[in-house]
Amino acid sequence: MKVAKFGGTSLANAEQIKKVCSIVRADQERRLVVVSAPGKRFKDDTKVTDLLINYAERYLETGEAAAEKQAILGRYQEIVAELHLSVEVGAQIEAELDEVLSNEKRLSPDRFMDAVKAAGEDTCAKVVAHYLRSLGEEAHYINPQEAGMLVTDEVGNAHVLPEAYEKLSALRSGSGITVFPGFFGFTKTGDLVTFSRGGSDITGSILAAAVKANVYENFTDVDSVYVVNPNLIAHPVEVKEITYREMRELSYSGFGVFHEEALIPAYQANIPVCIKNTNNPSAPGTMIVSEPPVSTKRVSGIASDSGFCSIYVSKYLMNKEIGFGRKLLQILEEEYLSYEHTPSGIDNISVILRERDLTADKEQRIVERIQSELRVDDVSVTHGLALVMIVGEGMRQSVGTTARATAALATAKINLEMINQGSSEVSMMFGVKSEEADRAVIALYQEFFGCEEDEKATAHQASSVMV
Amino acid sequence: MKVAKFGGTSLANAEQIKKVCSIVRADQERRLVVVSAPGKRFKDDTKVTDLLINYAERYLETGEAAAEKQAILGRYQEIVAELHLSVEVGAQIEAELDEVLSNEKRLSPDRFMDAVKAAGEDTCAKVVAHYLRSLGEEAHYINPQEAGMLVTDEVGNAHVLPEAYEKLSALRSGSGITVFPGFFGFTKTGDLVTFSRGGSDITGSILAAAVKANVYENFTDVDSVYVVNPNLIAHPVEVKEITYREMRELSYSGFGVFHEEALIPAYQANIPVCIKNTNNPSAPGTMIVSEPPVSTKRVSGIASDSGFCSIYVSKYLMNKEIGFGRKLLQILEEEYLSYEHTPSGIDNISVILRERDLTADKEQRIVERIQSELRVDDVSVTHGLALVMIVGEGMRQSVGTTARATAALATAKINLEMINQGSSEVSMMFGVKSEEADRAVIALYQEFFGCEEDEKATAHQASSVMV
Repeated sequence: MKVAKFGGTSLANAEQIKKVCSIVRADQERRLVVVSAPGKRFKDDTKVTDLLINYAERYLETGEAAAEKQAILGRYQEIVAELHLSVEVGAQIEAELDEVLSNEKRLSPDRFMDAVKAAGEDTCAKVVAHYLRSLGEEAHYINPQEAGMLVTDEVGNAHVLPEAYEKLSALRSGSGITVFPGFFGFTKTGDLVTFSRGGSDITGSILAAAVKANVYENFTDVDSVYVVNPNLIAHPVEVKEITYREMRELSYSGFGVFHEEALIPAYQANIPVCIKNTNNPSAPGTMIVSEPPVSTKRVSGIASDSGFCSIYVSKYLMNKEIGFGRKLLQILEEEYLSYEHTPSGIDNISVILRERDLTADKEQRIVERIQSELRVDDVSVTHGLALVMIVGEGMRQSVGTTARATAALATAKINLEMINQGSSEVSMMFGVKSEEADRAVIALYQEFFGCEEDEKATAHQASSVMV
Repeated sequence: MKVAKFGGTSLANAEQIKKVCSIVRADQERRLVVVSAPGKRFKDDTKVTDLLINYAERYLETGEAAAEKQAILGRYQEIVAELHLSVEVGAQIEAELDEVLSNEKRLSPDRFMDAVKAAGEDTCAKVVAHYLRSLGEEAHYINPQEAGMLVTDEVGNAHVLPEAYEKLSALRSGSGITVFPGFFGFTKTGDLVTFSRGGSDITGSILAAAVKANVYENFTDVDSVYVVNPNLIAHPVEVKEITYREMRELSYSGFGVFHEEALIPAYQANIPVCIKNTNNPSAPGTMIVSEPPVSTKRVSGIASDSGFCSIYVSKYLMNKEIGFGRKLLQILEEEYLSYEHTPSGIDNISVILRERDLTADKEQRIVERIQSELRVDDVSVTHGLALVMIVGEGMRQSVGTTARATAALATAKINLEMINQGSSEVSMMFGVKSEEADRAVIALYQEFFGCEEDEKATAHQASSVMV
């Protein structure tokens, strides 16, 4: 059994929904389908989820939002009409949606917001189920409450409860195709609560784990994951297979395929994930697996993220002082700061953290506490750092990866503010000035994938000739 | 005014003491002389300090150690005779030494041990002062208690008290040459306590700071500090000038010139240190300074030290958990372990520490606590690591140093277990397997100093031809 999750652009209009249903019908294993809310149809379009948020905000503020409501209903009316669903079906779907949108009297504002947001996925799931039935399939929409998607009561940031998995496992024995709305669940007391944004990926991941799917297919609008951000490099090399660990390291540094937490359930249940393109389903896509493939490439991807800063602390004979590092980290903890890395010399240590977390207030307090409580020789804060990451299973076993990477960066005249390597076996991290991050990524891509690029161009030429 | 400290080999016998006195007399600025106890005269000889320890141990154990005592007295008798000091002087020196050696009844065993150990330096200072006077100099021995060398009451590991500096500063206005025994001081209640081993360097450093010396000359038996361990590379490049920070980073990783703490007083008082050779005083030696010279070489030295191990910990989404690193370090602190470095990936962190500190007991307890208290996915310990360090002021500003270093290591087929760079501006640290450390140092030396080596060889050839 496969769990197939479709993202917003895969469901943006009737034409896209037809592609989705054709994909579902093409493989009898695709018996559990998770849908997002309809996304953008064109570049400047608005996602249904954003229409819903606009509506709820306006409605809560002014008690009236007719135009905003019509924008939502209109999207579904258009889809229902173009899918040639019956007038009765259309009316029923609209009535149920309208009820949610007008339900604020019974709910607190934040619960109302959550219920309205969830209506995007919920309505979409109903539409898809109806359309599949109209094509002659045995398909049915299921409500997450009925299915047993039990979650914590954290509005807008729910987490699945352990007992949900057993209830949801019953979906494995359901007949026909089950269409499950993503993005939300219900508390034990029956309140609807949404996951964090991108939460349909979470729903799919939970279901794949619950039913012990062979594979969790995640349909989006790209043929695959690329080894580098395609905004920096035109037509970069595609990733055929990548491990969970690699994916996690890459997503940390701005590799925006999945929400970081979305994959946890699938990861823990050892379910492979396949990222595929709704618009080109015959492309093999990218597989995310637990164990690296036999013929592992040394480098699987390159990513970068800016917005880091560094607190530098020096004190003569620091490393002889038992508890120094712990005290330093405790000061950060007491300011509710999580830190990212702590490269260190003999008499000095730097703490790398996200710039957004370090307000000017906190910065001043921390610097003062470090000076007075740790009696250091020097403390200073550097802003504007970026982390550039090379990720690849087995990279560490290969003598020379570091040498190639640092040589490529040196040739590009990029100064290294930091190198952190040695804990993770699958990544190597370079700190550079933010303004040099893009150039660093490009230089590393050229070093590790430049030849393949040429091969690809040659292959492409060859196939062009064949056509 | 210069403070000149002479090490044990510089005072091993009468011939060496003559060299020392000739050096002192050659510069009128050398008015404060610090001496060690006589060291080895030849490879298998025993240092006077070791003779004294043997004596005290035996005496405390059996109440009798005549042969051991005679070995000590014999060393000084020979020196006194060869320096042609008067019989009276010889007898007085011997009587004072004998009194210390027979003084155990009044003292606790550890105080007796400290007093006996200190007699090596103390007697040597008296001999040198007498010999200088016999040459017509105005010279006098000073007792550290009289001079105001006030220290903490930590037997065998004394630390100077802040108030000592003012008292000792009076030495600046003393007339003639003052000969000061290294290695010990006195508590406020008048008890003699020694510094940790190598403590004559500490005495010299304290005195240089107290009298605000122009320079602290440290005479030993090598022409200079070398950029790499001469046991690994024959005739390595000499270091002409090095900063305190560089010296500290090098001495951390097995660069055995100074006891790490010895330089603190001179460092804090901004006194330059000059390391010179008693057997070749015209060689310029190595200067240790606060600020790097204008034309800084990128790399000043290469060193390595083995005996490290690494505790690897991984946990999915670790970096989102505020306090995780602090809790980990606290477990180590509660086992009285200081750690050296903590390279980290996204979901993992390694703690590098000295292997000697991590007993099997502690290792087991720590691993268990990490598993149970931090609920990690994985924890493991790797033994047999070495740290290889490249040190140089301004190295970080130079694009490409890392690239050259890692390429040299890759060419030598040395796998990097860890790289730590980014906190210290003056060093870069590589973790390698212990058995590969020497090859790593040699490869780095060839990369950064190989050309100079050739130049030196050429220069040597040229000068040979001229002779």
